Amino acid sequence: MATIGDICVSASINLLSALAFLLAFGILRLQPFNDRVYFPKWYLKGIRGSPTGSNAVKKFVNLDFATYIRFLNWMPAALHIQEPELIDHAGLDSTVYIRIYLLGVKIFAPITLLAFMVLVPVNWFGKTLEAPGAKDLTFSSIDKISISNIPFGSDRFWAHIVMSYVFSSWTCYSLYKEYGIIAEMRLRFLAAERRRPDQFTVLVRNVPTDPDESVSEHIEHFFCVNHPDHYLMHQVVYNANKLASIAAKKKKLINWHVYYQNKYERNPSKRPTIRTGFLGFLGNKVDAIDHYTAIIDNLSKQEAQERENIINNPTAVIPAAFVSFKTRWAAAVCAQTQQTSNPTIWLTEWAPEPRDVFWENLAIPYFDLNMRRLLMTVSLFFLTFCFMIPIALVQSLANIEAIEKVLPFLKPIIEKSSIKSVIQGFLPGLALKIFLIMLPKILMTMSKMEGFTSLSGLDRRSASKYYLFVLVNVFLGSVITGTAFQQLQQFISQPSTEFTKTVGSTIPMKATFFITYIMIDGWAGIAAEILRLSPLITFHMKNTFLVKTEQDRQNAMDPGSLEFATSEPRIQLYFMLGHVYAPVTPFLLPFIVVFFAFAYMIFRHQIINVYAQQYESGGAFWPDVHGRVVMGLIISQILLMGLLTTRGSHGEGYT
Amino acid sequence: MATIGDICVSASINLLSALAFLLAFGILRLQPFNDRVYFPKWYLKGIRGSPTGSNAVKKFVNLDFATYIRFLNWMPAALHIQEPELIDHAGLDSTVYIRIYLLGVKIFAPITLLAFMVLVPVNWFGKTLEAPGAKDLTFSSIDKISISNIPFGSDRFWAHIVMSYVFSSWTCYSLYKEYGIIAEMRLRFLAAERRRPDQFTVLVRNVPTDPDESVSEHIEHFFCVNHPDHYLMHQVVYNANKLASIAAKKKKLINWHVYYQNKYERNPSKRPTIRTGFLGFLGNKVDAIDHYTAIIDNLSKQEAQERENIINNPTAVIPAAFVSFKTRWAAAVCAQTQQTSNPTIWLTEWAPEPRDVFWENLAIPYFDLNMRRLLMTVSLFFLTFCFMIPIALVQSLANIEAIEKVLPFLKPIIEKSSIKSVIQGFLPGLALKIFLIMLPKILMTMSKMEGFTSLSGLDRRSASKYYLFVLVNVFLGSVITGTAFQQLQQFISQPSTEFTKTVGSTIPMKATFFITYIMIDGWAGIAAEILRLSPLITFHMKNTFLVKTEQDRQNAMDPGSLEFATSEPRIQLYFMLGHVYAPVTPFLLPFIVVFFAFAYMIFRHQIINVYAQQYESGGAFWPDVHGRVVMGLIISQILLMGLLTTRGSHGEGYT
Repeated sequence: MATIGDICVSASINLLSALAFLLAFGILRLQPFNDRVYFPKWYLKGIRGSPTGSNAVKKFVNLDFATYIRFLNWMPAALHIQEPELIDHAGLDSTVYIRIYLLGVKIFAPITLLAFMVLVPVNWFGKTLEAPGAKDLTFSSIDKISISNIPFGSDRFWAHIVMSYVFSSWTCYSLYKEYGIIAEMRLRFLAAERRRPDQFTVLVRNVPTDPDESVSEHIEHFFCVNHPDHYLMHQVVYNANKLASIAAKKKKLINWHVYYQNKYERNPSKRPTIRTGFLGFLGNKVDAIDHYTAIIDNLSKQEAQERENIINNPTAVIPAAFVSFKTRWAAAVCAQTQQTSNPTIWLTEWAPEPRDVFWENLAIPYFDLNMRRLLMTVSLFFLTFCFMIPIALVQSLANIEAIEKVLPFLKPIIEKSSIKSVIQGFLPGLALKIFLIMLPKILMTMSKMEGFTSLSGLDRRSASKYYLFVLVNVFLGSVITGTAFQQLQQFISQPSTEFTKTVGSTIPMKATFFITYIMIDGWAGIAAEILRLSPLITFHMKNTFLVKTEQDRQNAMDPGSLEFATSEPRIQLYFMLGHVYAPVTPFLLPFIVVFFAFAYMIFRHQIINVYAQQYESGGAFWPDVHGRVVMGLIISQILLMGLLTTRGSHGEGYT
Repeated sequence: MATIGDICVSASINLLSALAFLLAFGILRLQPFNDRVYFPKWYLKGIRGSPTGSNAVKKFVNLDFATYIRFLNWMPAALHIQEPELIDHAGLDSTVYIRIYLLGVKIFAPITLLAFMVLVPVNWFGKTLEAPGAKDLTFSSIDKISISNIPFGSDRFWAHIVMSYVFSSWTCYSLYKEYGIIAEMRLRFLAAERRRPDQFTVLVRNVPTDPDESVSEHIEHFFCVNHPDHYLMHQVVYNANKLASIAAKKKKLINWHVYYQNKYERNPSKRPTIRTGFLGFLGNKVDAIDHYTAIIDNLSKQEAQERENIINNPTAVIPAAFVSFKTRWAAAVCAQTQQTSNPTIWLTEWAPEPRDVFWENLAIPYFDLNMRRLLMTVSLFFLTFCFMIPIALVQSLANIEAIEKVLPFLKPIIEKSSIKSVIQGFLPGLALKIFLIMLPKILMTMSKMEGFTSLSGLDRRSASKYYLFVLVNVFLGSVITGTAFQQLQQFISQPSTEFTKTVGSTIPMKATFFITYIMIDGWAGIAAEILRLSPLITFHMKNTFLVKTEQDRQNAMDPGSLEFATSEPRIQLYFMLGHVYAPVTPFLLPFIVVFFAFAYMIFRHQIINVYAQQYESGGAFWPDVHGRVVMGLIISQILLMGLLTTRGSHGEGYT
């Protein structure tokens, strides 16, 4: 177990790397040629343009050394902007999102103070670990201020129980207050908006087929009969998947066309050529620009024809439509009420914002939807608990012998001992790493299969899936050694109380691990976020090799977004760690408070200057956030019960 | 374990008692003086009147011996009446209710056929129990056609697995079809009704207080603003609990007054007297009729004054109202939509039928409702699992020594050995018996505390509570010996799969017990239902001692009702037994089919001739019935899994 000294070393390393990132950011952001990496939002909003001026050097490097002295002035700048202005500038979703960090500070700052005032002294004078009979135990100073220092069956545990209730009550109160604030913000936001079409529109799905009428006529008649005074118009949805794929193909080819055009313009002496065969390696050599021009022309014709086809073909109309009403009241009524006696047809819901619609899922029938949800629930279960099985399989295949068998010509290279050791050390981890990088995409695909009709809904759903994964595989997986599948077996084969006891009693021992985790992932990781190393490199690569016009440069910017589906479950892990360790090892709490405060500042800066959100749901994700914090609270209470059960009476439990 | 012979004896006893009940009913119902016991519904509807005629004997006894020959002709008569006519006569609730029995026949008749065609031969030729090595096992002929006769790890279990899926699929199909039929019936029923006020009315609860307006004005203004085109009128609800208690008290006293009046009229020579003190035992003797006349006059004055008070007192108005609209459409919109941005106030729902309103619960605030539901859920848990603890306590107190200590004067009587043995045999069971009789009332009280606003809702809620109790204490309690509390301990302290295995492996051994149970409770019990012994006796007692006028006689009738809250969960037990035993012991199935068919006929007769339902919910309980049959299906699959796990491989399980 680590001593306070070890933690200090780790803390200073992480603090230094965080500071290094911040310093690098502070200098890089002042250089004009990085402007589009660190302030893309302003460019997208059209407020900032490319620097113009006579001095060529000044266009790339900042020579005004006075600005370097104030290189940390982005911090007050990020905090200075007021909330209403922030909502105007960055949207409500982003503003509400960074309030999650603020909530973390609000909850854990008083808890930390209280825990250090009450629980640390109680633990410190427990003196179990320093008792003469406990000489053989290895312990650190952190353990001396944790619950491990309290003797079995001591009355001092009452302090922990009472404080745990105080912490939970404070959290509930904060959550309640925050929910009120967010609801108020959302209502004001919706009421203050200009006349947006989606506020007058309802998404109608599962329109039944009618033998005598087209879908469009059927919808028109249905709403004229059922909402005669309020119905305004409707827009049917066409199945334009083929058209979309043609358009995507064309866009890609145009990109290639532009690329060769650029190449030719840079070096007009030689017209670029390509081979038409497999991946450009085989086949005849042809002129690249002419080749792409011909294909693009061909595709444009196809596109026009396909568009004709869709509009004239009644089967291309899918049984869904956006129905608009004359008043918000009528739209609200239609969205909230059941339209017919059969609850599986004419399903109405609020139309998502136009940018927020996920078009592919509009045509799924009611029965399919339920089957898909069931299937995905089962898949999620297996993904969460059994993901190690296929990865172990891949790992067992991807060893050196297998590679030598399949690709014998690599044998002489692989057999070199230096390369061999790299492969042996690297390959087994690779499969897992690839899986973890792919995981958010897999979860998003699963959510898409479940048939949600809006991107915001998909994000929310993926976040709840990812939360389960983080809870089982990161939190429980770190506390209990062994894979999630082994945990599941343990959970099934043991009495249900035994599992809680095992987890609960292991909790105090893992405190130092989680402190290190918070510093790496929460401190240095967040500082790395603001440096934006990957967009920085990508932008400069693109800028150097591809960008020709101002429009191209605009496209080369990668502002990124908040990525609710993956980042929110990670914040929830910190909430849970805080609640679990508050009564057990209060020493962990300051690290969490620092994380929340630091992340709040960083992300405030990011949403002001960098991120461009794809849609605006008006903070509709807050109930999910709220629910998951409560869930973490419940888990922490159960684990504390498990822990205290093993410490209840003399000699019964185990450390 | 019982042999087929034992079962036959039991079956014949129960059949004979059932036949005896039916015979008694067939004769008693023909006697004119029992007419009001066996045909109260016709009297309540005003179709039948008291028999009139010159012959005094004919008024009491049926002398037309020809009718005795056809004494079973009520059976075809009960089945003859068509469903639409039945809905007209008895209401949709009753008609849908007896369709539960019909559903039972529809589900289990084909399952029985299939099980006897496939599983019985498979089991019969399993020959495990007759194998030379199994000589020491005791077994019966029933076991030879049950799953116990299949050797461990045999491939024959595939037959059981496949059949179990076939049975489940058939049940799901039947349920699906039946749901469609019921929904259709309900829709037609609602559409065909005359203009009923509740179809235009919405119940509004949690009206917020306004400092400037009374509740009534506030409601008027709110709906005039938010539903200007459709709002018609509203009716506030007064807190008239005090008035109601005065009225109830008055009614009771009037009853006494009438009683003494009758006594005096029968014997005019002596005016009846009572004592005014404790329970009529102490105090001064006064003239009974004068005494009650004085009290009733006094109460009438109080009543009038209280009525004045309520109408003039603004605090007597509770924050709830019935709001009526001009059209059904507007009422539907208001009932289904949220009225304000705060989802805890101005809560709207469809108004219950006037007879169906449960007035006491209209004023409960939103927060209280949730707290009450939480508290009641916890109470239900303890009631279900720990009800034996207080009963055991009462039992330990209610022994002979304790009685002798408290009431020493009873000692000489109790000490007599015959009386002693009766008390010793009787008392311990008494507390449990009283509890079980009280249970439906306790559950109903708990449901009332949860704040439901309609009697039908209360009935549905109580039914789901009672179902849990029956499932845990009757079904599981019979399969695993020991109290529910011990089961719970077992469930917690064992791995969760172990519990399923224990229950599953015990299932086949309990088949004979449940067959006996079905015959006693399902055959003889249902036959006793039609005889209506208790209302018969009560009516004749009242008729002899109390009834003076025709109106009194009307009141003396006790038509009873279907008692959804207690009888539906009992039917569900039969569904569950059928599903659990269908793949295990097919021999049990015919008993269940006979029960469903017999009960269908009996209850069809009862709803035509006897029961008077208090309210009409239009079959709104069907989703509950549907859900619980599905629940039984899931439980049966889990138990079959548990059973097959213990039989999976040679020698691993236990019989």
